[in-house]
Amino acid sequence: MSKVNVSAEHPFDKAIALAPIAATAQEHGREAARHWQGNTHPDYMNMVGPFGGLTAAQALHAVLEHPELLGEPISFTANFAAALAPGAFRAEARPVRTNRSIQHWQITLSQTNSDGVDSVALTATAVTAKRRQTWSAVDAVMPEVPRPEGIARVPLVKGFDWLQRYDMRACAGEVPTEWNGAEADSLTQLWMRDDPPRPLDFCSLTAMADAFYPRVWRRRALMTPVGTVSMTVYFHAGAADLATTATDYLLGQARAQSFFNGFFDQSAELWNESGQLLATTHQIVYFKE
Amino acid sequence: MSKVNVSAEHPFDKAIALAPIAATAQEHGREAARHWQGNTHPDYMNMVGPFGGLTAAQALHAVLEHPELLGEPISFTANFAAALAPGAFRAEARPVRTNRSIQHWQITLSQTNSDGVDSVALTATAVTAKRRQTWSAVDAVMPEVPRPEGIARVPLVKGFDWLQRYDMRACAGEVPTEWNGAEADSLTQLWMRDDPPRPLDFCSLTAMADAFYPRVWRRRALMTPVGTVSMTVYFHAGAADLATTATDYLLGQARAQSFFNGFFDQSAELWNESGQLLATTHQIVYFKE
Repeated sequence: MSKVNVSAEHPFDKAIALAPIAATAQEHGREAARHWQGNTHPDYMNMVGPFGGLTAAQALHAVLEHPELLGEPISFTANFAAALAPGAFRAEARPVRTNRSIQHWQITLSQTNSDGVDSVALTATAVTAKRRQTWSAVDAVMPEVPRPEGIARVPLVKGFDWLQRYDMRACAGEVPTEWNGAEADSLTQLWMRDDPPRPLDFCSLTAMADAFYPRVWRRRALMTPVGTVSMTVYFHAGAADLATTATDYLLGQARAQSFFNGFFDQSAELWNESGQLLATTHQIVYFKE
Repeated sequence: MSKVNVSAEHPFDKAIALAPIAATAQEHGREAARHWQGNTHPDYMNMVGPFGGLTAAQALHAVLEHPELLGEPISFTANFAAALAPGAFRAEARPVRTNRSIQHWQITLSQTNSDGVDSVALTATAVTAKRRQTWSAVDAVMPEVPRPEGIARVPLVKGFDWLQRYDMRACAGEVPTEWNGAEADSLTQLWMRDDPPRPLDFCSLTAMADAFYPRVWRRRALMTPVGTVSMTVYFHAGAADLATTATDYLLGQARAQSFFNGFFDQSAELWNESGQLLATTHQIVYFKE
């Protein structure tokens, strides 16, 4: 969250920064909505538009900055309608229903084109809640993998600038070294953290949930055009757990279940080095051919 | 979809029926939005309010009835802000962005209370798309289980009227017969179909994605208060595949990954009898100690 004690100079903090702005006449009357201006950031650009994880983090950040926020994120779904054009965008976050301990949010990121036409780049929904301590248990099993320090860093690939902002070390299912159409499984296991290191929070965890390279590239060893259309993150940790995780590496594991006529899914888990499952995340991705 | 050739007398069709209504003054100006009146249905009531799968299906139905619909559902996320009170509700479906082959939707279900105050019961987002035939593959493995005909039907439980509308036959992970706090795994495998049988479509598939009993009840053998707060369905089949499935049973498999301070997740798969994976689905559920 924005209150965590990190240097404001970290590129991720600059990239998710939001400046409050007034509602437009059209937006007036949507109760409790708040509006911000955000900006794309050159450090987090992908081949076409920004890294989707960063855009998702910007949308969640609008919720976390809202003065009426209740509790902490439980779930977050982002739908990528279009890549943000480089430059400024508008973020709207609106609590649509606040119950005793649970709050429901709608979020929109939009941009105005050169003809003055507004268009939506991202819609999102979030649920936040005041958690209570309850019986807890984790059924997902953390894979046994070597420590990150002994693994070579995933090499940078031209055209994916955002990869420079993540220190990734693959344990299994690396990016294919030959794009030869040799089919394989769709599993990837890798350690990752911000570069430079930055204490973990809900925004950076959300971004990392989208940091896996496309499962169809792994599955087919073919670099076909892809784009995430919808992504959901379920948070299984509170702010205190993320603060304890600090700048540790996270172990991520991702695989697909179905590739069908232009869309495939991805399910992934993110653990910290101590073995706590921090988030599970799912997405559905467009692919061509 | 509503165009499928089924008797309009099936309770599910009655339950998801929507009647077009005009926009209110407040709603005017939201481009391309359409509004309907729906109603809760006595056949699909749960302990508190309607069966969530039915409410989700009603929201998706508003998208499928929209005159500007592009293609078929790819993903759908519903956030349950409050149980619908018995009676009428308003549904709004709005295409917020339509690209060449992909369309993004926002959906809201709301009710007006006796003081004339509108409140949101459900927010949802959906992505629809014109699919193209591409290379396809399924990595998820369908469990080997006995055929449904040889398995006894899951007995009905008082207070869960909606269960009468589903013929369920459990292969593994049945509802505990003793609520004695004996911890177990969180896995359930069961066959299910509408009762009376009804040809499968996107709305009924969405409802069945929410038909598993709460994982925490299985995991702990304790019937604690629960409520789904957010649910996502990824569709891995087209309308033609669902039509071919017709009134076959679906095999569903569900398990949890984390139970943490008041919320647990569920991931599930739904196959048809021929072994085609039709949908993967995920949800996060509130639970009380």
